[in-house]
Amino acid sequence: MRLLFTHADLLLRGKRGYNVLKNAFLGVDGEYIDYIGKTRPSAAYDEEKDMSGKLLMPGLVNAHGHSAMTLVRSAGSGLPLDRWLNEAIFPVEAKMTPEDIEAGDTWAIMEMLASGTTQVADMYDFPFAGAAAYAKAGMKVNLCRVGLCFDPSLEPGQWGRTAECINFINVMNGNADLNPEAIRELPETKERGKLPAAIRKAVKAGRIQADFCLHSEYLTTDKFVNAISEANSVMKNRVHVHVSETAKEHNECLQRHGKTPTAYLKDMGILDQPTYMAHCVHSTDEDFAIMAEKGATLVHNPTSNLKLGSGIARITDAINAGVNVALGTDGVASNNNLDMFEEMHIAALLQKGARKDPTLLTDTQILDMATINGAKALGRPDTGVLKTGYKADIIAVDMTAPHMQPALDPVALLVYSAHGSDVKMTMVDGRILYEDGKFTTINAAKARRALAKAVKHLTE
Amino acid sequence: MRLLFTHADLLLRGKRGYNVLKNAFLGVDGEYIDYIGKTRPSAAYDEEKDMSGKLLMPGLVNAHGHSAMTLVRSAGSGLPLDRWLNEAIFPVEAKMTPEDIEAGDTWAIMEMLASGTTQVADMYDFPFAGAAAYAKAGMKVNLCRVGLCFDPSLEPGQWGRTAECINFINVMNGNADLNPEAIRELPETKERGKLPAAIRKAVKAGRIQADFCLHSEYLTTDKFVNAISEANSVMKNRVHVHVSETAKEHNECLQRHGKTPTAYLKDMGILDQPTYMAHCVHSTDEDFAIMAEKGATLVHNPTSNLKLGSGIARITDAINAGVNVALGTDGVASNNNLDMFEEMHIAALLQKGARKDPTLLTDTQILDMATINGAKALGRPDTGVLKTGYKADIIAVDMTAPHMQPALDPVALLVYSAHGSDVKMTMVDGRILYEDGKFTTINAAKARRALAKAVKHLTE
Repeated sequence: MRLLFTHADLLLRGKRGYNVLKNAFLGVDGEYIDYIGKTRPSAAYDEEKDMSGKLLMPGLVNAHGHSAMTLVRSAGSGLPLDRWLNEAIFPVEAKMTPEDIEAGDTWAIMEMLASGTTQVADMYDFPFAGAAAYAKAGMKVNLCRVGLCFDPSLEPGQWGRTAECINFINVMNGNADLNPEAIRELPETKERGKLPAAIRKAVKAGRIQADFCLHSEYLTTDKFVNAISEANSVMKNRVHVHVSETAKEHNECLQRHGKTPTAYLKDMGILDQPTYMAHCVHSTDEDFAIMAEKGATLVHNPTSNLKLGSGIARITDAINAGVNVALGTDGVASNNNLDMFEEMHIAALLQKGARKDPTLLTDTQILDMATINGAKALGRPDTGVLKTGYKADIIAVDMTAPHMQPALDPVALLVYSAHGSDVKMTMVDGRILYEDGKFTTINAAKARRALAKAVKHLTE
Repeated sequence: MRLLFTHADLLLRGKRGYNVLKNAFLGVDGEYIDYIGKTRPSAAYDEEKDMSGKLLMPGLVNAHGHSAMTLVRSAGSGLPLDRWLNEAIFPVEAKMTPEDIEAGDTWAIMEMLASGTTQVADMYDFPFAGAAAYAKAGMKVNLCRVGLCFDPSLEPGQWGRTAECINFINVMNGNADLNPEAIRELPETKERGKLPAAIRKAVKAGRIQADFCLHSEYLTTDKFVNAISEANSVMKNRVHVHVSETAKEHNECLQRHGKTPTAYLKDMGILDQPTYMAHCVHSTDEDFAIMAEKGATLVHNPTSNLKLGSGIARITDAINAGVNVALGTDGVASNNNLDMFEEMHIAALLQKGARKDPTLLTDTQILDMATINGAKALGRPDTGVLKTGYKADIIAVDMTAPHMQPALDPVALLVYSAHGSDVKMTMVDGRILYEDGKFTTINAAKARRALAKAVKHLTE
């Protein structure tokens, strides 16, 4: 299938920053972008799509989330952190089943596709159930098994089961068959020993990737971290971890280990493999130097950090230190939406205001955080930018609404004026998954019923 | 005309905070709400409107803006403050004509109505041209003549022409005929000595009100402030003023007068009349005590304060000191949109994050800031809440979109998850001005052409 977008404004990444190529053509051949130009390509396309009044840009990359927390959206709003976790979140999470996760993930995917996100790093439990949801939807995801298991036989804080984390990755990568735990998460699986075909296909296409997860220094043990580090020195997978989100956890790590969480992860060998580190609100300049040296990614979650009272991460310092900084929403429970346009807006405003310098964080830096920097962190270097030969992960933004005019500076409009609701089309790997309020791979009515059923069960 | 909303969720303000009355009825008789209840009213209505899936809430009050700055949306984005003003904003403003202002205001009104704002405090020049725009649209506004006249015959900084400020208010209130300046702003006026009938009607209905404007302590003179203060001791009008927006202006006032801008305004007698003070980022506890004692309103503009690197206002301290705190977007040039839902969201997040306390600013406090507190500041105590006998300034919010479900806490959803684009209907004084993307009083195509014409003229 070859599709040609016509009359489109294109957000392109030049060497010095973003610019808009006006009234241009963009061709898609299968999963890839095969043409970008001001003039009509000579090659023939099967279909044309008029993009007048719309700007095409790379799909946004949400580099830290807990998708199925849609199930607890706005639960316990306004409570202090410990009461919020212990009264509103943990008791509900403890009741979640794989069916709940699939329903919550599907609902999150709808929100993400409708607001222009094409790939997400989703840290939660029951990742096989999550894989089923993403595979059906056609969206890109990096899944991991968070291992928040609440198993009474484990010591408090020992949240993680090494063998299952390794098994999850091996199964997803086709190096192991489903074990009973995995089969429990995939109740509809016909071939009991095999991953469902839809998931296998999505993994093969690179849309679904399986990563390691540590949760955090404070919710794990040296033994677990060592085991993951040792396994990963061979497997060489990405690692998703929470780092220095609150002053309390950062300082307690200093007391426990005599070093910061970042230094701890480095010394344990974790950072020898590609690692994306969420939050880093209380990270030090030395931590930033470690991240830069090791090529780790800092994932900034400004809304969540504000909402939970964690503080304001020093993103400009991290960027200046050479750290790859990406952007995430965190779970909706502490946001309370998955709108990456809003996240860009808040990230850009926050550094300027908190540091009292309106020149901090340029539009280019913000857009990079929400696109190519995230794509790099999630191991998809063929995404995050509109370029021939790259995957066709493309969104169309309506530039005609009152709040998007006049268009004196379209790049600034994307950062400061746009909302997720301005997204009118979302394409992943050349396939349109969302257009003008409709989903092509998700039955919205069925998803709504599944969400209602899950929420009923969880709130009973 | 009597209209009955059926199957509506209603956001009501109880003594302790907001609650949602589900699946209820709200009746509108002419300009007023005449029924709220769970059961169908016995009285007959001319028309019924099914609000299934929607929540009705009071229209939002934007208590500080410069509407026609839509004309410079995103101009000079990322420049330091002085270069932004001197290179991107002031030179364009100097070229603005009354026709430009009417075009820019109409465009702003479209954005505001489409995102749920029903009244705004609009500080700019050519307020008669502004009045024409608001009168046609049917939206509520408090206008003032900012007096940023750049008249070379005036001393630098002496930006304000007392006589014209007084004349503007007298004309608007029917106590004087149009002078040549006013006629220049109202080129279409048929009766040269009289305000156009549409404006007279809007003034009579209370939709348009004329206030005094001082701009700020740093851009005016003692002579001007004294003159306004003296005139207003008789006229008893509201006053709109910028206060302590930047550390620089706050500190320079201390050097100039030996007191803060708030103490200066108090000592000059300005605060003896109802005053709404925008920004107050650098206001002291003593300033908050003065505002509370004098009944002045602090208008918080979190986005603009962040974007321009001004800092973070201590809103919770002001509220605790007893100050009436309202919310505003400021001009789009430093925002860059007029979405009051986004402003609520950012205001709520910011206090929690900057003060590292997730319990700060409750949902009720935020909603009050965006509704009744603003209504009080703008002198419309019959608005800002859904209540029988109050003006029917009502918006309908779609609660069914992915980012608005599940609805475990609808009040929190409005503060943290909603966007302006979730607004599906906006009613002012019982008249629907916007519904499902269409404006009933504004010709959108004509407004788009007028905007383009104005922008062309200003950027040439």
